[in-house]
Amino acid sequence: MDVDQDRLRCDIEANAEFGAIDSETGLGRTVLTGSEADRRARERFVDRLVDAGLEVRVDAVGNIVGRWVPSGCDRNADPVALGSHLDSVPRGGIFDGPLGTYGALEAVRAVQESAATPSRPLEVVCFTEEEGGRFGVGTLGSSVVVGERDPNDALALADGDGTTLREHLERIGFNGEGSIDASTWDAWLELHIEQGERLTDAGAGVGVVESITGITNCEVEIEGEADHAGSTPMYERRDALAAASEFVLDLERAAEELATVSSAAVGTAGSGGIEPNARNIVPERVRFQLDLRDVAHERMDRLVEDCRRSLARLERTREVDTTIDRYRDTPPTPLADRGIDAIVDAARARDVDSVRLHSAAMHDTANVARVTDGGLLFAPSEDGASHSPKEWTDWEDCAAATGVLAEAARSLAAR
Amino acid sequence: MDVDQDRLRCDIEANAEFGAIDSETGLGRTVLTGSEADRRARERFVDRLVDAGLEVRVDAVGNIVGRWVPSGCDRNADPVALGSHLDSVPRGGIFDGPLGTYGALEAVRAVQESAATPSRPLEVVCFTEEEGGRFGVGTLGSSVVVGERDPNDALALADGDGTTLREHLERIGFNGEGSIDASTWDAWLELHIEQGERLTDAGAGVGVVESITGITNCEVEIEGEADHAGSTPMYERRDALAAASEFVLDLERAAEELATVSSAAVGTAGSGGIEPNARNIVPERVRFQLDLRDVAHERMDRLVEDCRRSLARLERTREVDTTIDRYRDTPPTPLADRGIDAIVDAARARDVDSVRLHSAAMHDTANVARVTDGGLLFAPSEDGASHSPKEWTDWEDCAAATGVLAEAARSLAAR
Repeated sequence: MDVDQDRLRCDIEANAEFGAIDSETGLGRTVLTGSEADRRARERFVDRLVDAGLEVRVDAVGNIVGRWVPSGCDRNADPVALGSHLDSVPRGGIFDGPLGTYGALEAVRAVQESAATPSRPLEVVCFTEEEGGRFGVGTLGSSVVVGERDPNDALALADGDGTTLREHLERIGFNGEGSIDASTWDAWLELHIEQGERLTDAGAGVGVVESITGITNCEVEIEGEADHAGSTPMYERRDALAAASEFVLDLERAAEELATVSSAAVGTAGSGGIEPNARNIVPERVRFQLDLRDVAHERMDRLVEDCRRSLARLERTREVDTTIDRYRDTPPTPLADRGIDAIVDAARARDVDSVRLHSAAMHDTANVARVTDGGLLFAPSEDGASHSPKEWTDWEDCAAATGVLAEAARSLAAR
Repeated sequence: MDVDQDRLRCDIEANAEFGAIDSETGLGRTVLTGSEADRRARERFVDRLVDAGLEVRVDAVGNIVGRWVPSGCDRNADPVALGSHLDSVPRGGIFDGPLGTYGALEAVRAVQESAATPSRPLEVVCFTEEEGGRFGVGTLGSSVVVGERDPNDALALADGDGTTLREHLERIGFNGEGSIDASTWDAWLELHIEQGERLTDAGAGVGVVESITGITNCEVEIEGEADHAGSTPMYERRDALAAASEFVLDLERAAEELATVSSAAVGTAGSGGIEPNARNIVPERVRFQLDLRDVAHERMDRLVEDCRRSLARLERTREVDTTIDRYRDTPPTPLADRGIDAIVDAARARDVDSVRLHSAAMHDTANVARVTDGGLLFAPSEDGASHSPKEWTDWEDCAAATGVLAEAARSLAAR
């Protein structure tokens, strides 16, 4: 069973044109859900599914599924599904998502072209809004297919401009009908770039994920008092930005401390804003979105507690008002032995060195693995870079990992 | 000579409707140069100048002057000018600017209705973009009339959306012709709210400004590295926001230390932004606009040096790249004895208690006083609040200070 490296590369490079950004450090793209770049990326993906003879459907939240029913197999058997996402973070890289979606398509093409006779249909999946770059909610599409989120709630989510997912999908023509039920999948596989350096450090071609870190998102708001930056003496200020700066450093310190016992523990204040954000006004309000992760749920709780303690201290010492809203809490996800074993065996069969590890990044597999046997495999990331144009995986490595994906899918669909 | 409190109040309240904001804490407004609110505020002001029999002209950068030539005076004599501005900071108050522009108009009306026979024309002035809320450059209009800035350079300034001052003024119909030369003014007076608590603490009705603090603006940029917030271990990060947080606290500490020797010394990081500003990306870049003020120029230099030292330290300890651009430096401005004496004498004549003080806020007078004798007087600010809807001055206090302005203008124009 052969993977066609050039065909895979052509697909990923063509996809990288949509939302391509200027960057001196590498190839980058910005593909937010509902953007013109997203429309074009989706349309090309659908075209390529159809080219491969797959039957395409789009659900209400824009998830795309291409279905292949091998000749001679039971078309009513639960399918083996594989895929990832096509959206990106702002100024992200070209592999995060596309390697998994186009890798899944290439895997199916490889099975089609081989002598294999799968007993089950194969489905290639592209999930909507994995990154949460538009609506602030990550792994959105996969949370709908596992029944965790009502499709209408997802469609009503609004972006910073007040435009809903429904409106974005209608504009780009990807407001499909009906639903996809991931619990009807016999098994699920996702190929993704590692976004870390453990594979390159170990010289391995594939990482086999045993568990995915949990992720907690909080919105923190710190409110001081707006006042004239010239005529308000230093000692009379309740400067929300100065308080927020203490908070950011407290969070960093707490996460660093936790990282001494768990290499997966991280805490980030990645986005935020100042109000009223004028040079000559003492900042009245600062908002942050936090991203806290670990492989142990109780350590994630501890990090949130550290944040609360910092805010309580700032309320006392700086007379600011604070709130923290833990609006998302996804516990760590252990993956099924069946998925893990299928990938390990496939790597051995393809003569690709593999290592077992945890995933420090969130993936759609964390949702899907709650309703069916899920497997997640990584391809090496050069220098561990991701979510930036520096993201890179050699084409040989992309093809090798896709070969393992194809073999694992074949073996899962054989029974 | 009588000031009509109701007429003044009516003008300021009517002006407060333009750009009015929702606020639970008081009356607020957002009037950025070139906005619809700005257009309406300017049009009403011009109407009221015309109503009072003033001849209106608008210069190339949108500064408005209403000229009254008293009967019997030498129309070629250098005029006494008085005024302020109508623009506001985002979510600012209703007195900062309008009290000085409509107070100047009311002062001229009071002189017109009195038995006074001025020897000089009186001119009522509204300067463009005093707050710098649109283009990041404060006291813009007055910098042009004193010859400090070329009008074409001012017109070419672009806002955050890339729209120039020229385009904004054309759209609202305030792209006038020719220039105003403040050096031809015999004297200049500006009434403004104090934006501090020294008048209310002293129980005085008018503050007579002896000097205006200098102001330095810097743009600070801190560049780290964008990376995945889940898979990048804490110890491998070059987080621009964490570095920026240390910088904000260093600036606060340095300004607080300087404030122990000078009550006028302040340092503020009021506006800024994170890039790429996504929850799940370690911040790559943070930019701040700084506002540093004092009545002694060498202490302002020292504060900038403290900022440079902090950034140099962060380059070493956090491996970030930093730049600081001191793009504006206005030294402290002492005011002329002639202006000071005119206001002190006028307050005595009007039976209003006055105190001498410095202005901790920048004003157009700081520019004008470099080319002619300038006077600046303050009305009391309740709780010292400003640049916020909490800004308030009782109408009796507005009228009393306007009476002092009128008397000072009358006496300056008498000779």
